[in-house]
Formats: sequence, C-alpha cells, structure tokens
Amino acid sequence: MTETRDHTVRRSWTPDGGQDVILPDHAARWLYSKTGLTEMSTPAAPDSALVAGESALPDAARSAVAAVVGPEHVLLGREDRLGRAGGLSYVDLLRHRGTGDLPVPDAVVLPADPEQVAAVVAVCAEHGVGLVPFGGGTSVVGGVAALRAEHAAVVVLDLCRLDRLVSVDPVSRLAVLQAGVVAPEAERMLAEHGFTLGHVPQSFERATIGGFAATRSSGQASAGYGRFEDMVEGVRVATPRGEWRLGVAPASAAGPDLRQLVVGSEGAFGVITEVTVRVRARPAVHRYEGFVLDGWTRGAEAVRALAQSRVLADVTRLSDPQETEVAFTMSGGWKTRLVRGYLRARGVAEPCLLVLGWEGASTAEIAARRRAALRVLRGSRPVSLGTAAGEAWRHGRFAGPRQRDALLDRGVCVETLETATYWSTVDDLRAAVRGALADALTEDGRRPVIACHISHAYETGASLYFTTLVPRDPDDPIGQWKRAKAAACQAIAGTERPLGTITHHHAVGVDHRPYLPGEIGELGVDVLAAVKRELDPSGVLNPGKLTG
Amino acid sequence: MTETRDHTVRRSWTPDGGQDVILPDHAARWLYSKTGLTEMSTPAAPDSALVAGESALPDAARSAVAAVVGPEHVLLGREDRLGRAGGLSYVDLLRHRGTGDLPVPDAVVLPADPEQVAAVVAVCAEHGVGLVPFGGGTSVVGGVAALRAEHAAVVVLDLCRLDRLVSVDPVSRLAVLQAGVVAPEAERMLAEHGFTLGHVPQSFERATIGGFAATRSSGQASAGYGRFEDMVEGVRVATPRGEWRLGVAPASAAGPDLRQLVVGSEGAFGVITEVTVRVRARPAVHRYEGFVLDGWTRGAEAVRALAQSRVLADVTRLSDPQETEVAFTMSGGWKTRLVRGYLRARGVAEPCLLVLGWEGASTAEIAARRRAALRVLRGSRPVSLGTAAGEAWRHGRFAGPRQRDALLDRGVCVETLETATYWSTVDDLRAAVRGALADALTEDGRRPVIACHISHAYETGASLYFTTLVPRDPDDPIGQWKRAKAAACQAIAGTERPLGTITHHHAVGVDHRPYLPGEIGELGVDVLAAVKRELDPSGVLNPGKLTG
Repeated sequence: MTETRDHTVRRSWTPDGGQDVILPDHAARWLYSKTGLTEMSTPAAPDSALVAGESALPDAARSAVAAVVGPEHVLLGREDRLGRAGGLSYVDLLRHRGTGDLPVPDAVVLPADPEQVAAVVAVCAEHGVGLVPFGGGTSVVGGVAALRAEHAAVVVLDLCRLDRLVSVDPVSRLAVLQAGVVAPEAERMLAEHGFTLGHVPQSFERATIGGFAATRSSGQASAGYGRFEDMVEGVRVATPRGEWRLGVAPASAAGPDLRQLVVGSEGAFGVITEVTVRVRARPAVHRYEGFVLDGWTRGAEAVRALAQSRVLADVTRLSDPQETEVAFTMSGGWKTRLVRGYLRARGVAEPCLLVLGWEGASTAEIAARRRAALRVLRGSRPVSLGTAAGEAWRHGRFAGPRQRDALLDRGVCVETLETATYWSTVDDLRAAVRGALADALTEDGRRPVIACHISHAYETGASLYFTTLVPRDPDDPIGQWKRAKAAACQAIAGTERPLGTITHHHAVGVDHRPYLPGEIGELGVDVLAAVKRELDPSGVLNPGKLTG
Repeated sequence: MTETRDHTVRRSWTPDGGQDVILPDHAARWLYSKTGLTEMSTPAAPDSALVAGESALPDAARSAVAAVVGPEHVLLGREDRLGRAGGLSYVDLLRHRGTGDLPVPDAVVLPADPEQVAAVVAVCAEHGVGLVPFGGGTSVVGGVAALRAEHAAVVVLDLCRLDRLVSVDPVSRLAVLQAGVVAPEAERMLAEHGFTLGHVPQSFERATIGGFAATRSSGQASAGYGRFEDMVEGVRVATPRGEWRLGVAPASAAGPDLRQLVVGSEGAFGVITEVTVRVRARPAVHRYEGFVLDGWTRGAEAVRALAQSRVLADVTRLSDPQETEVAFTMSGGWKTRLVRGYLRARGVAEPCLLVLGWEGASTAEIAARRRAALRVLRGSRPVSLGTAAGEAWRHGRFAGPRQRDALLDRGVCVETLETATYWSTVDDLRAAVRGALADALTEDGRRPVIACHISHAYETGASLYFTTLVPRDPDDPIGQWKRAKAAACQAIAGTERPLGTITHHHAVGVDHRPYLPGEIGELGVDVLAAVKRELDPSGVLNPGKLTG
C-alpha cells in the first residue's frame, strides 16, 4: 500500500519542474536562424506566482467525501490543488507559468480502491459536485481541466492510490490492473510474472492504465502490440448509477461491444477503476534500427507496403524531411555530420528517417520477421543507418515531452497535434495541415518549423503526428496557440467530409469538442449525450469534456 | 440493376427447399444406434400447409411506402411474406413445417437504395409500423422474426436490391458495399479488382454484408482475416432521426468508437445500408491440411499455443472427440476406415481433428508461416492426415446448415449453439454445456450426440461451437428445443459470473435476450435502451430483438 507516499505532483513534463533536458546551443542557434527566434525573457517557473482561490467545496460534500476516503485524503492545499490543475498541453504549461486562466479544483480526493471511488462518485452525484478523474495528468487536450460547468464546485479524483496489479491469469494471459497504475509500474509488476503489456506511448513514464483506457491511447509499438483498446478485455467502472463491469470473453456477438463505448469515454460516463488487459510473454530479444528513404512520398509508400503486406515491425516510424532535419540538428555533433555526408554521397536528396523496431522471443524469430519486412522495403531503396540509429531513437523515445519545458524557457511555442486518415488521403492531409499551420504562425518575422511523422500504420491508413516550433508571440501567446490549433483542426475536419480524424490518440477533451459533430455526426454526439444522461443523470462526471 | 430478379425466397437451408444433401444410410444407422432414433413420419415440406393471414398494414402506411419504393416493391402475397417469416434456426424450420407459431410479416418492402431505405424508415416511424431489416435471413436466434410488439403491423425490409459494390479505393484497400450484397457476390465483385474480403462464415452462400455487420459475424478464417467488426471501417445507417455516417480513419481517439455500437446493433438502432470494409489482396495460394491430436485437452492446449505464439493458421479449427467421430462417420467409406486404422496404429486413443488452412501471396510465404506453426505444434505430437483431409473440410465447409433439412426429414432435432471464453475456462465451459445438454435431452429413450469444436481462437481465449443431434420429441418438439436451449444458456450465463459469452457470432436476436443483463449488466441494457430511444424514439426498428 502507498499510504506514506508523497502525493505532490507538478504541472511540468520534467518530474521536478526543472529541466533535465537542456536545449543545446547549436540547436538554439538553428532555431534562431530557422524561425526568427530571439532571446526572450524566461517566463516564471511553474506555479511560482499562482494563487489558488478559496475552495468552494461545500462543507456537507467535503464531510461526505472525507467519510469515504478519510479526511487526510481530501487535499485542500494550494500545492496539491495546483498540481492537479489541468494537464500538460502547451497552453496548460503557459497557464502554470502565469499566462491565461487556470481553472483550479476545489479539492483533490485520493480514494484507496474501486469501492471508495464508487462511493465518492455517488457523493458527488448526490451533492452536485463536478468530479474530474485524474491519472498521470498528461492530457494535452484539456481532458483533465478542472472545469465546474454548472456545478458549484469541482474536485479532482486522483487515482494514484489505485496502484495494484489485482490478478494475473497466466493461462489466458490476462491481467487485472487498477486504474491508477502508472505504465512503468505495470510493466515492473507484470515482469515478475514474465509478461508485458507492450503499451509505450510517449507519456509512458507518467501515464496510467485508466488514462490509457479513458483516452483510447496508442503506443509507439502499436503495430506489434495493438492500440490500447485492442488490449482491453474488460473494464470496471464506477458510475453514478452504480458499478458496471464488462468483459466475459475475448470476442462476442452479444450486441454492440460496450467495452468500446467505455474505452475513449474520458471519464464522462463513469470512472474506470480496473482494466483487464491482454498481456504477452516478455520479449527476450529486441532489435531497433534506422533507415533513410529519399522523400516523403517514397517513405509513406514504403510504410503502406509494409502494412498491407502485414510485415510491419512492432515499432514502425517514418519522419518527414522536416522532422528528420530537426532530429539530425538536435543530436548534432560529428556523427550527424558523418551521416549527412554519407546520405549525400548516396544521392539522397530529402532524407526521411525510418525507425523499425522488432521485439520477440528469439533472434531467429526477429530475423525471420525482419527479412520479410526488408524484402518488401527493397523496392523503396532504403539506406541503412544500422542499429545505432535505432537505439538512439529508443533511448530518447520519451524525451520529446520533457524538451518542451526547456523550449518554453527559451521562448519557443512548441505544440504537437495528431490525426489519422486512409492511405489515399495521407499526402493531402499532411499538406493541408502544414499549410494551415504555416499560414497561422508566420507573422511579425516569426516562421514555424513544422515536422511530421507516421508512427502508427494500419492496412488502410496511418496516423500523422505534427510538431510545431515557432517563437512565442510575446503579446498574445494563448491567442497565437488558439489560432494555430483552430487552423490545423479546420484543415483536418473543417470541410464537409473530414480529411481525417480530429485525433488519433490524444482524445477529445476540451480542445477537440467543436470538431466532434463533423466526425461522428450530430447524431453521434446525441448518442453520446444520451449514454451520459443514462449513466450520469446529474452530469457531474468530467464536466465540459467529450459531450459537455 | 436487379429489377427483373425473382424475389422469392424459401425458409430452408437448401436453396430450392429440397435436399441436395442426403443423409447417407450408414450415417442414419449410426444415429439409430447412438441416439435411439427410429423411423419417424416426415413432417410436411416447408410452407406447404401454412396460412399467411390478411395483411394488417394500414392503407395509409402502405401508400406512403409504395410512394417511396413503387407499388411493385411492396409485396403482400403469401409466398413472399412466408419467405421472409423468421430465420433459419431449428425452431424456425419447424415452424415452417407447421409446428408452433410463425409470425408472418404484413408486407415485404424492397427498397432500391440507401435513400429509399431512409425514406421507408421515416414512413414506418411516422406511422408506427414495425420494420424488420432482412438480408440473407439466415439468423438462427430469431433475429429477423417478424414480431409486431406493440405495433399494429410489421413489415420486412428486404435489402436484396441494395446489391452494389459502390466504390473501391485500391490505395487504401477499402471497398464500400451495399448492405444487401450476398457474400459470394461481394467476393466476385471484389475479385474483379484483385481483392477479397475473406469473410467466410458457414452462412456464406446466403448471408449479406449488412447482416454480417448487424450481427458481429465471425468467419471460418477469422484468425487470418479478423472478425467482421475488424473489417468494418465505416457504416451508413438509416435511422428514424436521419442518416448517420461513421468512419473517417482506420483508428481514432475521438471518443468511444461508435462504429462498434452500430456493429452488433441488429437493426435496432437503424438500418445499415452501406458498409465500408477493409479488403486484402486475393490470395494466390492456399493450403489446407488435417492433423489429429490425441484428446481434447491436448488439442485445446495446442490451439492455445498457436494463438499465444501468434502463428495461427488463417483457418484453425479443432474438433473434439465427439465431433471427430461424427465427421468420420458422416464421410464413411474405406478411406475413413483406413484413417481409423492408421490412428489406432499410432496409439491415438481419442482422435481430435485439427484443420489448419493458410492463404497467402506465395508458396514461400505460406511455407514460412506453416513452418512456424508446426514448430509450435510439435510438442502436441500431431498426426498428419495431409492436405486431403484439409481439402475435404474445405469442400464441405458450407454443407452443415444444408444437412439440417435432411436431418429434419429423418426426425432428428439438430441444433447448434456457440459461446466463447478465456482459455482458463474453456474446459469448464465445454463440460458445463455438454452436461446441461445431455441432462435436458436424455429422455424417453432418446440420447443426444453432442459435438463441439473450437473455430475461432484468440490470444486470450476461444469460441466453442456445439452441435447437438437427438431424436425429435414427437409430442413436443418446440418444448424439447426450448428446454435444451435454456439448459445450455443457463450453463453458459446462468451463474453470477458468466462462464462465457451467450453468443460468440450468432447475435442476440430473440433467443439470447434473457441472458444479456447477465453479460453486460442491467446498466449495459439500460445504455442500449437509451441509445435506441435516442435514435428510434417510436421503437419501430426490429421490435423484440436485442433491447426489445
């Protein structure tokens, strides 16, 4: 049990609020020349100057919640409430540095187990208090914003004490994990039984099992292990109308698959307290390697061929020329110069980095799968960079988010967004989003760097993940972000027939709500609202997200 | 277009209502000795003596429907209405032979396209007329029973004229098929573009794309091609509140996956008019072969090992000793005697037939996959029967349902049911269902033969499919079936925690409704009802199925 754990959390990607990833000088110089970035005053350190107002939680509700979890697990202090105020998007980080409005919860509640969660949900429904389920707090779409909506108060339900591996069925390869288990802990506990989940999103170090389910998360190795929804065999959910359990078989025709209605429900229908997941034997061997393909179109075609021949590596990741340039620049040094020279000598005009990673039971198994993939790849004339390049990616696979803090310090507006579409639309979608971002962010001498990669490939299509770097608008940083986000979303979903999904793995939260009707229809939104009314009649669960 | 097509259909598995599959004498003798079957009077030929009462469809509704589809596409004749009265379960077949109550629709409506479907749905909603969507009519769970519920009349909406391949996207490997396309036609039309769907359930010859989606169908090659829900990329649905389209990307985190709410909705939320499916390159090569494993436990362990090593053949099918015995007996002849002798000589005490079938682009690809599978299989000491046994299965893969007509003629009560569960429960579930069926059906000198197979294997579990043969109770054939069905369902789902799902690929229909709350909870049923109220406020769609 974790009764003695320190429950303080900070709203920055680096665990201590400082920077363990420093932006190297050569990278800063490159940004200066590319984007028009200039020296800028460093904004305040996170939370240093913020005020958390008085808690508006009514005494009766507070007493009732305290009676469930114990008074020591109802946190009202400034640090505790700020630590669960919103997620970790660029605007959330800005808000924690004193820019814009930051909704702060009226209390943080720490239940011990699913039964306490159910009881707290019931108390909140009875007292009309908004409740925001909170795992790792890594949402980048406002998914854990402490919005009150029409309620007098809102509490954050931090699931950190639901940190147990409940059971393992080694024959069926199933594990029941509590919702608050963070991914590395899940892997550590499963490893004791010889198993792995294999779910490795960029937020891996902080994100939780419940969060993965609530947001339809997808990990970097989704080609091998599947999206999180593919791993979910069962769920236990605390709704205002009582507990709900789903999942009795790997597949069923007993009506619609309601598990898939819970997965992606973002806490709006109930609080996910336990997830039954499919696990796999821990891989004994892995092999990650890098290749370079010449040009985006050839690269995307290669990934499509791998997907449609069903020989994708477990990790299959293609950077466009811009992202490849960023990657080369960030690493810098003589090795990168060597690579650039090598590629020039091979006649590669527009290098696109392709990382392939295999994990398996034996070297022979991996060798066989690798052979099949390389056979398909051959026509695309890949230039091998060997395992060093693959391992370099693997080593830095979680560094991206942390770099945000360092970039923010240097005055850079850094944001990511992602979408997915069918193969025949991939090029159009990439061009449309790039164009929209460039238009929205090129102003007053500022020029964006827009990088893109495919990190999740399917037989019928792929995800596109964009990273944008641009000097912060010193006068209106929130407005700058809003304009860019709106432009990108319009490009993706603003036409009568959307070019792609408004989000492939970041969920809806607050930011994507305006685009949901375009994707699932007004009828789809009505259906979600009907389900919410049925399960959460007083509308206390995660106000303002998904269905509102 | 199909304006000139004969729209007559018969409620028997064999297309012309006759028997193209005759029960061989040696098989009948075996049934006599095993089950206590005796010569029994042949029941009436299907529909010969049935009366279809006056149509209760109000004139106003009939005129309104006729205005949409044309009067010639509103069928009121006896043959047309009887031909869409119910599905093809054992009790449906009995009813068409004059036993029990057969609900007959008041009219059959034949819309030409999705727009007409939407208009007919609107008319029915306005006039309060029940509407049963009808594809191949192969439901074995009452899914297309023409129930009126609280409505004054009920029409069957036969989708046979929605028979087009709307479009193919060869880059994304997507095809849009209208709901009424029967599976062989889908394959024929896709083959012209070099593609296949690969969905091959036992009802393949008659079942439709819309029916596959509405029932969460699973084909015999599900290990290779996936369940039908895995193939669905998008749907177009005619609801009483308007048309609803879903599907803009292969995967999304934009809230719950509502496609999975439509797939399996059995026409209760709307009429599926188009389905966008993932297609694959047509396989150039196939190899089917047979093996025998000694004993059920060893066999199931072998299939589990294949699934968990992720080297399942595209078709992977294990018969238990009883089903293997039935298969050997039905084929009969000197070849079977040879096989029996061969197995005895190899010391096989309880033969369990394992059929493995691979389909692929090249002999080399199949050889590699086969090698990987046989490596895993080696520990289970398989006895190879070669490709002859595999091809024999492939040749007869759709014969099972047709055999029903012949068996019915000989006085046999023949019914199938299926479920699925996690691997650690597979043996318990098989034993429980076998026990329940044996108890319910052993009476008055009648003894059932209960055969079982695994036809769909997953990493975490498998389906179990049971076939029961028992002499018909001449005095109460419907009651005999009901008792057996209830006993089996109780064994699967009657305990506080269900042993498995009430249906792995036959859907809920009428027969499984009582067991739905046990599987998805009362909350789950309430959620489905809330969705139905939202989309079908007057409750006219497929009355009495799924949510009622």
